[in-house]
Amino acid sequence: MGARDYDIIIVGGGCAGLAAAIYTSRARLRTLLIEKEVGVGGQIVTTNHVENYPGFPEGITGYDLTQAMRRQAVKYGMETLAAEVSGLVPGEFTKVLRTTAGEHTARAVIIASGAAHQHLGVPGERELAGKGVSYCATCDGPFFREQRVAVVGGGDAAVTEAGFLTHFATKVYLIHRRDQLRAQQINQERVFADPCIEVIWDTLVTAIEGDEEVKALHLHHVKTHEESVLEVAGVFVSIGFRPNSGFLRGVLKLDPNGHIITNEVMETDVPGIFAAGDIRLNSGRQAITAAGDGATAAIMAERYVSALRASRPATLYI
Amino acid sequence: MGARDYDIIIVGGGCAGLAAAIYTSRARLRTLLIEKEVGVGGQIVTTNHVENYPGFPEGITGYDLTQAMRRQAVKYGMETLAAEVSGLVPGEFTKVLRTTAGEHTARAVIIASGAAHQHLGVPGERELAGKGVSYCATCDGPFFREQRVAVVGGGDAAVTEAGFLTHFATKVYLIHRRDQLRAQQINQERVFADPCIEVIWDTLVTAIEGDEEVKALHLHHVKTHEESVLEVAGVFVSIGFRPNSGFLRGVLKLDPNGHIITNEVMETDVPGIFAAGDIRLNSGRQAITAAGDGATAAIMAERYVSALRASRPATLYI
Repeated sequence: MGARDYDIIIVGGGCAGLAAAIYTSRARLRTLLIEKEVGVGGQIVTTNHVENYPGFPEGITGYDLTQAMRRQAVKYGMETLAAEVSGLVPGEFTKVLRTTAGEHTARAVIIASGAAHQHLGVPGERELAGKGVSYCATCDGPFFREQRVAVVGGGDAAVTEAGFLTHFATKVYLIHRRDQLRAQQINQERVFADPCIEVIWDTLVTAIEGDEEVKALHLHHVKTHEESVLEVAGVFVSIGFRPNSGFLRGVLKLDPNGHIITNEVMETDVPGIFAAGDIRLNSGRQAITAAGDGATAAIMAERYVSALRASRPATLYI
Repeated sequence: MGARDYDIIIVGGGCAGLAAAIYTSRARLRTLLIEKEVGVGGQIVTTNHVENYPGFPEGITGYDLTQAMRRQAVKYGMETLAAEVSGLVPGEFTKVLRTTAGEHTARAVIIASGAAHQHLGVPGERELAGKGVSYCATCDGPFFREQRVAVVGGGDAAVTEAGFLTHFATKVYLIHRRDQLRAQQINQERVFADPCIEVIWDTLVTAIEGDEEVKALHLHHVKTHEESVLEVAGVFVSIGFRPNSGFLRGVLKLDPNGHIITNEVMETDVPGIFAAGDIRLNSGRQAITAAGDGATAAIMAERYVSALRASRPATLYI
């Protein structure tokens, strides 16, 4: 077995990839986790206070949570490589990962490379991320009890976020750049029926104002060109979600947005390739659902590798 | 709204149910968790050392893990009820749970009542549970590095457990009461091809011997009636798994063994009823996969309840 050949290669070092690595390395499968930068830990590291990862009643920072998972995987033998993956060639016995640090091979591959929220790209957005600027209402909505918040977007995700926020906020503004929503009709009707939600049409957010926390949004009306200021304590940006799956086009079955399609045990349409976490279609987009996905993918990958081994004489196991 | 009416009722207080309760109560949905005995915590509480729940690199006891989840859910407002559930009537708007402590109603229900491993029912089994007697190779296999272990059973689960244990044990005995396995042919072939696994046919385990930990199994050959003793450090009992779903027959779609059939977002075939954890078909049967299931079920249940609310005038929301 060459130095660069593994039982399992995992792509992505967020909660899904690390949970998978805990399971595969604890099962004594030789495991390589490839991530862009070592130890960064996926989307959740920008979250200062994770309240809903079961097992931490006092909360935990995203950084501490992923570092704990990393120590757990390293303890059982996970190896890591800092590289970008540019391609995957899925042979029956040997899957080849092409990376900026050379080629690496494995019997089974778990794709957990996550997804990136689209950003508005306006002043204040980056500086106030985690201080009132959020990309996940399920995660951060409860921090805005009895306050006014805004959601930016007009699709089903934005409308769902707005509906969820009505459990907490006194007022939810839904700010959309067009004069009609893209969301399904039934979701639109819910928005219009909810007295807590007010839609602001034809409007762009041009800046997010605040010092230690969000105070207001600067708005621009695209038809009248009027400028205005809207005071809110939080803004949820929900204008799209881009899975990091470019290197998988033509290899795995993806939905039109680039999410990997899996069944409920994380199998893709290619045997021996599994997907976990935000990159897959219908992910819960939570640390705990990503970790659960990762464990499931790892259990299935172990069975796949064991079956491959049993199907070949040991001398051919190269 | 009556005192016994809730947004969400969760059946079962293990990892799946508690994770769901963290999510629904944090979303400010009025949540009742019904469990047989308050604070017991599901199957995992018998596990002294959980090594593979991501986030706890030093491990945690099953009891401490579920207690932490419980505190987290209580913090956000979960109520609990000690009762046995005897029936579920799934109305479109109101689901009725019949229990030994009266009827309780909710808009949505999450079934997380788990499953019980079948026990051998022999002397030593109960006393040595967690001290060498296990019902889960994925969980406990790594504790038996370079030791001899036995698996009891002859189905696909038993054969899969035996294969997994070869990553750790020097020798795996597969003890089966019949003269052929029930497992699928392909799984049988793997067992026979693996030099690390030895099948002991036509044999019952009559006792598990040990003081602080398992030392040996007492065996009885069903044809020759010979008695013998097999020295092993661990025994994995894999003779069946019974979902706690008796009260759901005729209500939800179950597989022949009584597992609830869900899609990958935990929806059952009845709108507004979700399932999570070991009770569902294709569960990973791990604390982390159960918790992930619970969070996913909770997210979907919240959307269901919000849609129901939007579809009715507030005055009818009784």
